[in-house]
Amino acid sequence: MSRLEKLRRSLILQGLDALLVSQPENRRYLSGFTGSAGWLLVSAANAFLAVDFRYVEQAKREVADFEVIHVKGDVANWLPKLLLDLGFKKAGFEADQVPFATHQQLGKATTDRQHELQLVATTRLVESLRAVKEPEELESIIEAVKLADTALDYARSIIRPGITERELAWELERCLREKGSAPMPFDIIVSSGPNSALPHGRPSERAISKGEPVVIDLGARVSGYCSDLSRTFCLGEQDETFSKVYNIVLGAQLTALATIRAGMSGDEADRLARMVVDEAGYSQVFGHGLGHGVGLQAHESPRLGPSSSDELVDGMVFTVEPGVYVPGWGGVRIEDTVAMENGKVKALTRAKKTANI
Amino acid sequence: MSRLEKLRRSLILQGLDALLVSQPENRRYLSGFTGSAGWLLVSAANAFLAVDFRYVEQAKREVADFEVIHVKGDVANWLPKLLLDLGFKKAGFEADQVPFATHQQLGKATTDRQHELQLVATTRLVESLRAVKEPEELESIIEAVKLADTALDYARSIIRPGITERELAWELERCLREKGSAPMPFDIIVSSGPNSALPHGRPSERAISKGEPVVIDLGARVSGYCSDLSRTFCLGEQDETFSKVYNIVLGAQLTALATIRAGMSGDEADRLARMVVDEAGYSQVFGHGLGHGVGLQAHESPRLGPSSSDELVDGMVFTVEPGVYVPGWGGVRIEDTVAMENGKVKALTRAKKTANI
Repeated sequence: MSRLEKLRRSLILQGLDALLVSQPENRRYLSGFTGSAGWLLVSAANAFLAVDFRYVEQAKREVADFEVIHVKGDVANWLPKLLLDLGFKKAGFEADQVPFATHQQLGKATTDRQHELQLVATTRLVESLRAVKEPEELESIIEAVKLADTALDYARSIIRPGITERELAWELERCLREKGSAPMPFDIIVSSGPNSALPHGRPSERAISKGEPVVIDLGARVSGYCSDLSRTFCLGEQDETFSKVYNIVLGAQLTALATIRAGMSGDEADRLARMVVDEAGYSQVFGHGLGHGVGLQAHESPRLGPSSSDELVDGMVFTVEPGVYVPGWGGVRIEDTVAMENGKVKALTRAKKTANI
Repeated sequence: MSRLEKLRRSLILQGLDALLVSQPENRRYLSGFTGSAGWLLVSAANAFLAVDFRYVEQAKREVADFEVIHVKGDVANWLPKLLLDLGFKKAGFEADQVPFATHQQLGKATTDRQHELQLVATTRLVESLRAVKEPEELESIIEAVKLADTALDYARSIIRPGITERELAWELERCLREKGSAPMPFDIIVSSGPNSALPHGRPSERAISKGEPVVIDLGARVSGYCSDLSRTFCLGEQDETFSKVYNIVLGAQLTALATIRAGMSGDEADRLARMVVDEAGYSQVFGHGLGHGVGLQAHESPRLGPSSSDELVDGMVFTVEPGVYVPGWGGVRIEDTVAMENGKVKALTRAKKTANI
């Protein structure tokens, strides 16, 4: 079944005449349009892509199953008339994406036209389709994973005491781009020593030294699809703290990889790794979730973390990335991109998991 | 007056007890926090930055005037209690930023607590402060403009028939980064021949040829602040169409630069350039606005374009970038980053405006 057919089935289940799609990756997923602005309107009989002047030519080139319409001004200017002309009564919109102000303007514009239109808040209709990857999507992700692995190998070959976080991050970005990655799906993280206690730190001018943790977190992008990879290194001798924390995180990651099964919730999967960290006495410092889906976005459905009810099923691609962060000392994170296959986790990432260089 | 003081004055004018700030650059502008998630709560007496686990350490390092609080879960989990404890009755939120679903959750959570709290939609309270730059902000922008100029010079030196759009775009990105730019504020555009008729085209594998338009649009980022620069080249001999279109766009740009004055609206400024294009008979193909503010975002207030009532005043920094796009043939765009100073436009961009290489 095509993506559009799946969405149309889901519209029927929701009792909607049509769905408005404005989330950029959802728009691309359904229509093929890669521009940064535009609205899809999908109903049982119609599929429109509405764009402004800047994107008309591009949209016509990229889109096959959608009729491109050229619109002017805010969505509240043109959408109510279109919905009225098509006779829709219940149109869904993406409530996590549409700003409050846009919803107000749309509501007002439909009321002004004495239009009996109900705007219905929906969540994750397209995201839930996107969470399960088609074979061609998986192929692109695997290409992006390979590029990330290559960059990580390169990191091993050039990291040395004295190189700054920023220098190393740039070298890795250059490697990824020159090997064929599109612009980075997220800014590369290289954080060393105490900086590595910041799970989302930015590369600084700090020079990397021996004996401290160095967290590298990077991803590539191929045909729109992302990969996500973290490793933690230590140059020279590893002190007791490093070995201890590293082994806890590695144990948690390997446990999760070996024991996650299709049918589990994101919360259950998270607990498999968290238990290992908890038992080692580090429960307070594994603050983020175990992982997240990877696809057209570097972070997408499903979510693996406390209280996530997302069900993990075959075809999903996500990260498994426990981390322990000790303020003042540093952190360790080990992250693979994996796919669910035959009910189990299959690691796509192949980068080695040894901390020593 | 500090940024926080200016915002507090604006809260009084709006009759608000407090403002919630979630727009990333607004958050950074007020607090100094550069992380990608978090909420500010500003009132006459308080200034909080609420972040989750991932950002606590970073926030404490970066922020001076705000009290960092560590929160868990969605904003609807922790915010209503905080607002209740502080006794606020009217709290503003950023209506262009907060998704419909988040507003609903907040509304529900405050009702559940039988809290007499009114959530008030606000627009552009912080954006309007950001539109007028402080001297140190202007300095960073000027550094970013210089980097963009350097990259454009480099483009002139390496562009040749046969180089692909993607190769050239990557060379320019590499130049910008190696000269000191942070990651790109937007993906570099290199579009040639018919591709240049797409104002926002992506660099493709198309090889650049002689005699056709090549639009290059790039920016740098320094200390968070952006620049934005476009030029159009033609390798070898320029045919009649190119010369004609190029001179119309250049005429429109120079006219706008020379005649924009403080006190004009964004619409009036736009018309100065549009008139020149219209008179030459190309009114149908100058589809985008004349320009946009530049600062922490590559596109911010003010907007220079049809129906924009934004008043242009001293201290603003914006682009002046008329363009003409002829489907099937190509396009020409010429863009400077400029500052309003002493009532007039002062070009910050110094890159040459000749199309020939």
